[in-house]
Amino acid sequence: MASLLTKVRHTINRYGLLDRGDKVVVGVSGGPDSLALLYCLLELREEFGISLHVAHLNHLLRGEEAAREAAFVSRLAEDLGLPATVEARDVRAYREERRLSLEEAAREVRYAFLREVAVRVGARKIAVGHQADDQAETVLLNLLRGSGLEGLKAMVPCREGVIRPLLFVGRAEIEAYCREKGLNPCCDRTNWDTVYRRNKVRHELLPLLARRFNPAVVPTLARTAAILAEENELLEDLTRQALARAVRQKDASLLRLDREVLLALAPALRRRALRAAAAEVGGAAEFEHVEALGEILRKGAGAVTLPGGVRARVGGKEIIFLRRGAGGEAVPPFSHPLRVPGLTPLPEIERAIRAEVVPPPARPLAPPEEAWLDWGKIRGPLTARSWRPGDRFRPLGMKGSKKLQDLFVDAGIPVTERRRLPVVVAGENIIWVAGVRIAEDFKITPATREALHLVLEGGEG
Amino acid sequence: MASLLTKVRHTINRYGLLDRGDKVVVGVSGGPDSLALLYCLLELREEFGISLHVAHLNHLLRGEEAAREAAFVSRLAEDLGLPATVEARDVRAYREERRLSLEEAAREVRYAFLREVAVRVGARKIAVGHQADDQAETVLLNLLRGSGLEGLKAMVPCREGVIRPLLFVGRAEIEAYCREKGLNPCCDRTNWDTVYRRNKVRHELLPLLARRFNPAVVPTLARTAAILAEENELLEDLTRQALARAVRQKDASLLRLDREVLLALAPALRRRALRAAAAEVGGAAEFEHVEALGEILRKGAGAVTLPGGVRARVGGKEIIFLRRGAGGEAVPPFSHPLRVPGLTPLPEIERAIRAEVVPPPARPLAPPEEAWLDWGKIRGPLTARSWRPGDRFRPLGMKGSKKLQDLFVDAGIPVTERRRLPVVVAGENIIWVAGVRIAEDFKITPATREALHLVLEGGEG
Repeated sequence: MASLLTKVRHTINRYGLLDRGDKVVVGVSGGPDSLALLYCLLELREEFGISLHVAHLNHLLRGEEAAREAAFVSRLAEDLGLPATVEARDVRAYREERRLSLEEAAREVRYAFLREVAVRVGARKIAVGHQADDQAETVLLNLLRGSGLEGLKAMVPCREGVIRPLLFVGRAEIEAYCREKGLNPCCDRTNWDTVYRRNKVRHELLPLLARRFNPAVVPTLARTAAILAEENELLEDLTRQALARAVRQKDASLLRLDREVLLALAPALRRRALRAAAAEVGGAAEFEHVEALGEILRKGAGAVTLPGGVRARVGGKEIIFLRRGAGGEAVPPFSHPLRVPGLTPLPEIERAIRAEVVPPPARPLAPPEEAWLDWGKIRGPLTARSWRPGDRFRPLGMKGSKKLQDLFVDAGIPVTERRRLPVVVAGENIIWVAGVRIAEDFKITPATREALHLVLEGGEG
Repeated sequence: MASLLTKVRHTINRYGLLDRGDKVVVGVSGGPDSLALLYCLLELREEFGISLHVAHLNHLLRGEEAAREAAFVSRLAEDLGLPATVEARDVRAYREERRLSLEEAAREVRYAFLREVAVRVGARKIAVGHQADDQAETVLLNLLRGSGLEGLKAMVPCREGVIRPLLFVGRAEIEAYCREKGLNPCCDRTNWDTVYRRNKVRHELLPLLARRFNPAVVPTLARTAAILAEENELLEDLTRQALARAVRQKDASLLRLDREVLLALAPALRRRALRAAAAEVGGAAEFEHVEALGEILRKGAGAVTLPGGVRARVGGKEIIFLRRGAGGEAVPPFSHPLRVPGLTPLPEIERAIRAEVVPPPARPLAPPEEAWLDWGKIRGPLTARSWRPGDRFRPLGMKGSKKLQDLFVDAGIPVTERRRLPVVVAGENIIWVAGVRIAEDFKITPATREALHLVLEGGEG
């Protein structure tokens, strides 16, 4: 069997982890994996022409013990004549601020720390000690969680400067290496990832699989992950390209995609494009949602509500992903310049207004969610905003002006719904209370040469 | 929770399993899955406008019991007023003939039977009773075996006329459906797939995963497989296209691919293309082989021996996959017309001869594996063949002719190697004993206007 050093060298070469002249920040917890990583890189330092910088973070989660580990790593770096950065950060505080699991919080704080150290010392690479058993555990956890290729690919040998030279080396080999080199790890591996599910995989599932099914289950899963990582990367690239071809309009809270382009994609890409589209506006799409999106896309009509406050709607030649504003039920006041022609997202109410200038229709009758107005009479910038106390205008068919509040009462629109009906303003004048009435002064007449056609989109139904 | 019938209807619609007017051969073992399948399709018969034909195969593996099951299915079909084909075939004999596992043999015989029945009765579809638990088992088995996406995708809802309407329905739901409909399955599910590993997955692993990790592990894995199947299909399409672009020459036993085209591919496609290339000439390529192939491709030189008697070699701008003939060490006599210009594979000796007609070189010296000959003097069809007792010619630099046998002795070439050196013949004349000597009568002279340049390719080293 190839020695640990040979395997690490192969991984470095195969995935191009190191370039001559690289400075590498090595994340060292003091556990066996990171110690083996550090000593390996020391052994390979001249061969690859790299220099090393040790980094250790005390997560302030385990008191005394953690302080001892930090001291251990400091002393070790000194003994090895390596520069080191040892710091402490409050993971618990960060966690509460962000509402994360402890594991997620620890990971985010740790990577942020490692990146900061890299910037400070001018390092291009960050090496971490993840090994094949970690990888196999991650594959199984993600499989059992139901993630597709994105999860099954697990950790990659190299991404955004973070390298994992031990990714194809198993725990047993690392322990043998530590013994052989006389290394004395000061903490066990579970310190950073003490997660119930992961420990169940580590201590129950993987041993069972090795005993009853495949003694080489760890390297087998690690290799599977490596293959799937490359396949996932390709599919991600293709998805990005496909999505770019389909985009008709893009905003922080709105994404309009061409339906035909999506329908022409291979099913796998269509599925990924729909997931990616939901993510673009801050939503999420699990299996069932993607299936539902695929269905409305095929049918050419319908809407789906997605987690993350996003609603997708298919109409005619497009599918629109729209994020509703923060705050859920209580709609905050809003005001957006109206695009003419175009679609103006009103994320606060999870809707949008489409505007176009066209020849006037013969019979300008319209459902409440549409308006036909005389474009020639409209002056000043157009705005779509929520109603304000004191708003008034002359509704279609009336002699005098009226307060919007009274109009709402007459139309039987409950207070909670009033903020959900945008008011379209031209300069100082209200020209349309969407869903209710247009203004008398801007209606279409036989003299109208050009009409502004407005449609309030994205309602239920 | 949706009823079984609703789920089956959804699967049929989602994957387009049935077209109006389809006749469907339903494989019925008599176990709960196939009974539920049959009754479901009966319930949906009018809705989808299909007709049914029952098919049952006695594998002759379980004597009396199997005969009772066959009788049960016959009677059932009669009671339901459905046409049926019930036959018996000797799986054990087939297995011995083909050197398969019992499971593989049973599957091959069964599908062959179902396809024959379909042809006989004019059916376009074959429905089989695989369900979500089977699928989850297959995903886990393939994962533990180390297969990539090809295995993780497991069974697909529809391929080549075989449909699996129960693929997203779990075992428990099927059992509930059978109880509800008063169906009395006559055999358990393990009859056809009594395999030690699968039973371990069924009775140990899946229950553990459901209990300790995810109660919905079966539907989770079934959905994962459905997603991965679509992604795998896309990657297979892309691989086929990429391979087609890379092919320079293709034979049953030889495949020449353009190195630059392969190097320009995304890593995932390059990996798949290399695997597919090996398969095209009857070889196989596991993870390590693909890695090794990738490496010689990058380096631009080297060779890799693959399972299935295939050797791949990179030289200059191409990679060549060559299958050696059957029989291994003992080389059978061979004779192949020589392509000029072109590459002539000599699969019996795992090598090839490249021929081109070019201006003669100034100094026609060549290593033993190359020959420069006077194209103007060459008459008759060119052949590359193994030497024959009695072969003789005039070697370069000699006055008289000589038996090849003597030439081999003089050159110290052992008897076992002589058949490995092809002899190139033009009409009746030997013009080159590859690896040893050209014929005096065909050498390049100052009068030569065009030269035939031959290179024996694909040796060790």
